[in-house]
Amino acid sequence: MDQIIKIAVIGGGSWATANIKMLSDNHSPKEIFWWMRDKENIQYIKTYKHNASYLSSVEIKVPTENISNDLNDIVSKCEIILLNIPAAFLKNALSCLSPSSFKGKKVISAIKGFVPEYNMIVGEYINKTFEVPFEDIIVLSGPCHAEEVALEKLSYLTVASPNCELATQFAALINTRYIKTNISDDIYGTEYAAVLKNIYAVASGICHGVGYGDNFQSVLISNAIREISRFVDIVHPIDRDIKESAYLGDLLVTAYSQFSRNRTFGNMIGKGYNVRSAQLEMNMVAEGYYASKSLHYINKQFKVKMPICRAVYAILYEGHSPSIEMKLLADQLS
Amino acid sequence: MDQIIKIAVIGGGSWATANIKMLSDNHSPKEIFWWMRDKENIQYIKTYKHNASYLSSVEIKVPTENISNDLNDIVSKCEIILLNIPAAFLKNALSCLSPSSFKGKKVISAIKGFVPEYNMIVGEYINKTFEVPFEDIIVLSGPCHAEEVALEKLSYLTVASPNCELATQFAALINTRYIKTNISDDIYGTEYAAVLKNIYAVASGICHGVGYGDNFQSVLISNAIREISRFVDIVHPIDRDIKESAYLGDLLVTAYSQFSRNRTFGNMIGKGYNVRSAQLEMNMVAEGYYASKSLHYINKQFKVKMPICRAVYAILYEGHSPSIEMKLLADQLS
Repeated sequence: MDQIIKIAVIGGGSWATANIKMLSDNHSPKEIFWWMRDKENIQYIKTYKHNASYLSSVEIKVPTENISNDLNDIVSKCEIILLNIPAAFLKNALSCLSPSSFKGKKVISAIKGFVPEYNMIVGEYINKTFEVPFEDIIVLSGPCHAEEVALEKLSYLTVASPNCELATQFAALINTRYIKTNISDDIYGTEYAAVLKNIYAVASGICHGVGYGDNFQSVLISNAIREISRFVDIVHPIDRDIKESAYLGDLLVTAYSQFSRNRTFGNMIGKGYNVRSAQLEMNMVAEGYYASKSLHYINKQFKVKMPICRAVYAILYEGHSPSIEMKLLADQLS
Repeated sequence: MDQIIKIAVIGGGSWATANIKMLSDNHSPKEIFWWMRDKENIQYIKTYKHNASYLSSVEIKVPTENISNDLNDIVSKCEIILLNIPAAFLKNALSCLSPSSFKGKKVISAIKGFVPEYNMIVGEYINKTFEVPFEDIIVLSGPCHAEEVALEKLSYLTVASPNCELATQFAALINTRYIKTNISDDIYGTEYAAVLKNIYAVASGICHGVGYGDNFQSVLISNAIREISRFVDIVHPIDRDIKESAYLGDLLVTAYSQFSRNRTFGNMIGKGYNVRSAQLEMNMVAEGYYASKSLHYINKQFKVKMPICRAVYAILYEGHSPSIEMKLLADQLS
C-alpha cells in the first residue's frame, strides 16, 4: 500500500494561501497540513473555511484538524515542508526547529527574499542551518501573483532543484487546470532572480512616482534583466537563458503588475513618502526593501556592476533624493 | 561657411509629429521641412502651429513655408529624408519618387512595419527600390511612444546604421533634454524587432481580451523575446544582446503600455470584435495586423519556430477563435 504524501505549508499569507489552493485543487493523493502563527486567524479559517486576511475569496479545503500553530508538530508529521513566510521573519519563525526536525524531509522554499541575518538566499540558509542537502531542496518560483491564482488565471510556476526527479515529483502535486510548471536545475539562479526582481520592482515604482513614463520604464527593465544576468552569471555560472519565464517573466510580472507590493512601495517612495510611512500605509511587507540591503552586502563580495540596485539602496538606506538619484541613474542606462 | 543641414520629415502622424518636436527642440543648427498629404491639416498647422489630429498639444516650430504636400519639392531641397508614414501606405506615397530623387541623400526610416507589397522591411525596400546604399540608411527605433515625447518624458531612441559615424551624426540632431540615443550597427535586427513587437503587442491584447491575467502576460512576453531572438539570429546572424532597449525595451513598451494601438486592437479582437469592426472603431492603423501577414510569408522561407506569431496570424487571417487559439498556444509556451 502506497503511503499518502503529507505536505506542510508553513505561513499564512497570500502566497501560502495560493499554495494551499493549488495543492488542494491538484488531484494527486496527498494530505495537506497548514501552519500559521496567528491563532485567531486559524480559528477563523476553521470556522469559515476562508483566510480572513489574504485571498479571502479562496475556499480552504484543508481538514480543520490539520491547521495549527504548533510548528514542531506539523513539521514532524510531514515529509514535504513548503516554507512560505517572509524572509525577514524566517529565522525567528523556525527558531524552534533543529537539523533533526528536517532529517529525511524535502524542503520547498516559496519565499522570495534574503534571510537578513545572514544575507543568504533561503535555499542556502536551509542547507547551512538545518543541514538539508541541496538534493532535497526545491525553489518554487513564478512568474506568479497569488491574487491571480485565487482567480484561477492560467499561471506558470518554476520548480527548481539540482534534483530534477524530485522537482518533477513535486510539480505533479501542484499542476492544475490553471497551473503549469517548468522544471529547472538552476536553484541558485532561480532564487537570486526571484529575490532581485523585487528590488527592480521597487525601482520601477520609484521611477513612476518621480514622474518617468512608460518609455523610460521599458529601458529600466531591459537594463534590469541585464543586471540580473550579470549577477547570476558571476554568482552561479551555469548555462542558462535569462529570457526564460523564471527570470525575465518573473521580473516582468512584478515590475509591471498592478498587484506588485514592491512597485506600490516604490511608487510611494518616489512620490515623497519616507520608508516608514510607506510601510505603515501599505500594511504589507515589500520584500524589495529588505532585499536591497542584503544585496548591497552580498555584492561587496562579487562587485557586479548593478547601477539600478545601487540607486535603490542609496534612496532607501542612504537618504538620497529619489528624483536626483534616478536622474543620475538615467545617465548610466542604455 | 558651413551649410545648414536640411532635413525633411515625411508623414503627418503622431510619430512624425514627435520627430518634428525633437528635431526642433535639439539645438544643432538645421532647417526642418515637413511633408504631409492632407492639405487641410497643413493649413491648420500653418495657422495654429499645432497638428490638428496627432499630438495636438505640441507647438510646431517649423517655418510655415517649409510645410507642404509637394513631396518632390521637399525631398529635392533636403539632404536628410526621414520617412515616417505607415508601411502599408509607403509604396503609394513614394510613387512619385525615383532613385535619382534620393541620389546622395541620407534616408532615415522611423517606420515600424513591412512594406506589404514586397514583404520587406523598410530599409531593404529603400535600398532595393531607390538604390540608396545601406551605408546611407538609418533605422530610428524605440522604445518610444510618441505621446510621451509630447509630454517630454525621458525616452531612449536607437539609431541603427551599418555606418556608425552617420548614426552618431544623426543622433546629434535629435538628442534633447528628454531624448537620449543609443547607437547600433544592427540595422536589420533593430528593424525586424521593431516590426515584430507589434505582432506581440496584438497577441498581448488578444490574451487580455480573452481573459488571461498578468501572470500569463509575463510568460507570453518572455516567450516573445525568445521568438524575436530566434528569428533575427537566423535572418541576420550577428553578435547582439537581445536584452538591449532596442529589442527587449521596444517589445515591453509596446506590449505593456496603455498607449499601444496594437495592444488595443488585439484586446478588441480578444473580446470578440472582428478585424474590420476593430479597425473602424480605432480609426488608427494597428501595424501588427499588417506585419502579421507579411511575417507569415517571410517566415515561409526561414521556417523559424514562432508559435505566438503563428497564433496571431491564425486568429487575424484564418478566422480561428481567439480563445481556442490562445489555449493551444499556452501549451507551447514555457
